[in-house]
Amino acid sequence: MILKTSPLAPKKLKKLYEIDGVSISSLSCGIKKNLKDDLVLIKFDSPSQIYGVFTNSKTPGAPIVWNKSIIKNGKISALIVNSGNANVFNGKQGEKALKKIITALSLKLSINKKEIYMASTGVIGEPLDYKKIIKQIPKLIKNLKNSPQSWLKAANAIRTTDTFPKMHSEEIRFCGKENFHINGIAKGSGMIAPNMATMLSFIVSNIPLEKNEIKKTFSNIVEKTFNSITVDGDTSTSDMVLLIMVKNKNKKRLAPPQKKEFFNKLESLMSYLAQLIVKDGEGASKFIKISVDGAQNYKDAKSLGMSIANSPLFKTAMAGSDSNWGRIIMALGKDGAALDSSKISIKFGKLLILNSGQNLLSKNVKKINNYLKRKEIEISVRVGTGSGSCSVWTCDFTKNYISINTDYRS
Amino acid sequence: MILKTSPLAPKKLKKLYEIDGVSISSLSCGIKKNLKDDLVLIKFDSPSQIYGVFTNSKTPGAPIVWNKSIIKNGKISALIVNSGNANVFNGKQGEKALKKIITALSLKLSINKKEIYMASTGVIGEPLDYKKIIKQIPKLIKNLKNSPQSWLKAANAIRTTDTFPKMHSEEIRFCGKENFHINGIAKGSGMIAPNMATMLSFIVSNIPLEKNEIKKTFSNIVEKTFNSITVDGDTSTSDMVLLIMVKNKNKKRLAPPQKKEFFNKLESLMSYLAQLIVKDGEGASKFIKISVDGAQNYKDAKSLGMSIANSPLFKTAMAGSDSNWGRIIMALGKDGAALDSSKISIKFGKLLILNSGQNLLSKNVKKINNYLKRKEIEISVRVGTGSGSCSVWTCDFTKNYISINTDYRS
Repeated sequence: MILKTSPLAPKKLKKLYEIDGVSISSLSCGIKKNLKDDLVLIKFDSPSQIYGVFTNSKTPGAPIVWNKSIIKNGKISALIVNSGNANVFNGKQGEKALKKIITALSLKLSINKKEIYMASTGVIGEPLDYKKIIKQIPKLIKNLKNSPQSWLKAANAIRTTDTFPKMHSEEIRFCGKENFHINGIAKGSGMIAPNMATMLSFIVSNIPLEKNEIKKTFSNIVEKTFNSITVDGDTSTSDMVLLIMVKNKNKKRLAPPQKKEFFNKLESLMSYLAQLIVKDGEGASKFIKISVDGAQNYKDAKSLGMSIANSPLFKTAMAGSDSNWGRIIMALGKDGAALDSSKISIKFGKLLILNSGQNLLSKNVKKINNYLKRKEIEISVRVGTGSGSCSVWTCDFTKNYISINTDYRS
Repeated sequence: MILKTSPLAPKKLKKLYEIDGVSISSLSCGIKKNLKDDLVLIKFDSPSQIYGVFTNSKTPGAPIVWNKSIIKNGKISALIVNSGNANVFNGKQGEKALKKIITALSLKLSINKKEIYMASTGVIGEPLDYKKIIKQIPKLIKNLKNSPQSWLKAANAIRTTDTFPKMHSEEIRFCGKENFHINGIAKGSGMIAPNMATMLSFIVSNIPLEKNEIKKTFSNIVEKTFNSITVDGDTSTSDMVLLIMVKNKNKKRLAPPQKKEFFNKLESLMSYLAQLIVKDGEGASKFIKISVDGAQNYKDAKSLGMSIANSPLFKTAMAGSDSNWGRIIMALGKDGAALDSSKISIKFGKLLILNSGQNLLSKNVKKINNYLKRKEIEISVRVGTGSGSCSVWTCDFTKNYISINTDYRS
């Protein structure tokens, strides 16, 4: 099946920066049957700091198990990524494939195995033909380049059912001084749900920050971005978000406002990439932001938001531009978090549909129907008078989701 | 939209029995726009025992709130059911509509309000035009009949997106004595998930049993039947299963084996009705039984089974007759219950796909592909060596589900 580019794809992607000390190469090693690139190597000239958030799946892929086992060392020198095969549930064979690849890279690059990370995405339960990968390692290394184009090529090579490449960048300018950069690429389209979803994202920055300054803030940002999206409620076995901070010759310490600026831009980049994944949600024709406030706490707000975002009945109503807000009520009700029905308010865009339990739909029905025909929809739900709030992002549920998933095999 | 009868509908439904002391009438009061029957009255000549299990939704309909408030009295004399409007989230107006109807029935039938139950199913958040219902009460009462046909008519009148009526009966024969009977009708098609789903079921029996003998066993049977099915993971605001035991002139006490026979038959009837709901799952083309064993306990087994049964990726694979068992692994992994990957086995029918983590798909691929083309599929999953097991029932996820739900309004 040939997938058409999502109607929600951005018209233009921001070019990524050249970041000193980072080089990339991509090629086709033959795992994907269509001869498209399916193998990426990202090499760091010197060992760099790494932070990661991984899937909570109880049946994780071999790369997840490996990465989790080495991340406590906190250093990365190379990252290899293949698409087309997730190397999940291949038992001892899967572990062996991973180790063969890591060992071969370690030898060829003369770097410590524990500084080599791997990510795989694609079909589950089919043996990964590691020989195809190992055979291409010399060529991968030979082709390593530091250029904006090599980032784009990598963003393309990690795609599976993605219909467009996902990347974004940010610049942190310091008056009269060297500017710092953040580059990020991502993949993901189906099997997207909270707690990491089928999604890979690799973010690289050269800003000089200490380890203890990053770890917790990074996890918080992942929670508000990549862990706040859902396409179908399914969670993959292979998800990860890696943040890599490359060494910077400029050893100057940043002042607190500069650090703040960095984290704001990092969140903005991660939020943008997470939203691109939803915009490429399998079969998506609409991008939907759901904001919940008035919940007892953040956890309840998130759980209520996700209950709406994952409801097939809500998502099909959105596909049909149907103002059937009863399905939002149903989704709130089934979640189990505390609610006060007489305090529930719902807005579609700026249009109030329900005000403290009172149905106002008929007053605005024409405007609302027009609003729901848009490609980007915002839904705000107030569920009480608590201080818990959150935003989550999802897409609608269309016949194309079914088409894509009834006959998908990479 | 005209819905075609589900391809999974049974060829023939069992006729219901005449149960002494029960009379029924159905008619169209104009809530449904298509002039089909949308109102049912079931009347019991003398106050009968009632047992109920209701939705856990935090935004329940007015009828749920009412029924829950009176069920502690344990007596029923009449049940009124309307389809086309769920009377959910109509605030004080919803309560008022319900009370007007109950009061009118109480006056006309000269029975206590607290012995009158109501059920409503259909659109959420639109005011229920109770005057349409009250106007028809005299005619409803006049037409009350005790006949198998009146049960069928009622099973039809409670339908919304159901493509066929759902009913079943059982007979308990006692050598040389009066036979006892169980009649059951049900409705449900979408918004079906555990904890009661969008589903109504009314079961009536005339077997003489004491209150304390029924209550707990009935809840257990609901857990293994109506609470073990899912169509789309959405849970309705209006679900209920009511078991009504009408007075029997034969006051003879049953012996333990006879009681056992009754509960077996009751479970068999409830299981059959629950499965009919799945077979009428919106857009369903395949009926799927998922059995899980080897889990640490029943709760884990159920949670793992439901994680598979609710996964859109698993359900679309089934729609495509695709042996992509990786999606079963994904669904098991995302659930969070304890697993031992090296012990997981999966069978499609009698065909072993995965044996203690080892992939055997290629050995049987032709047979498996043929098997998956069937209309009824059984999947058995062993997840470890524990003693927890369960069965759940679901259907596949097709383009027709999307069609039905992008433009459904009763």
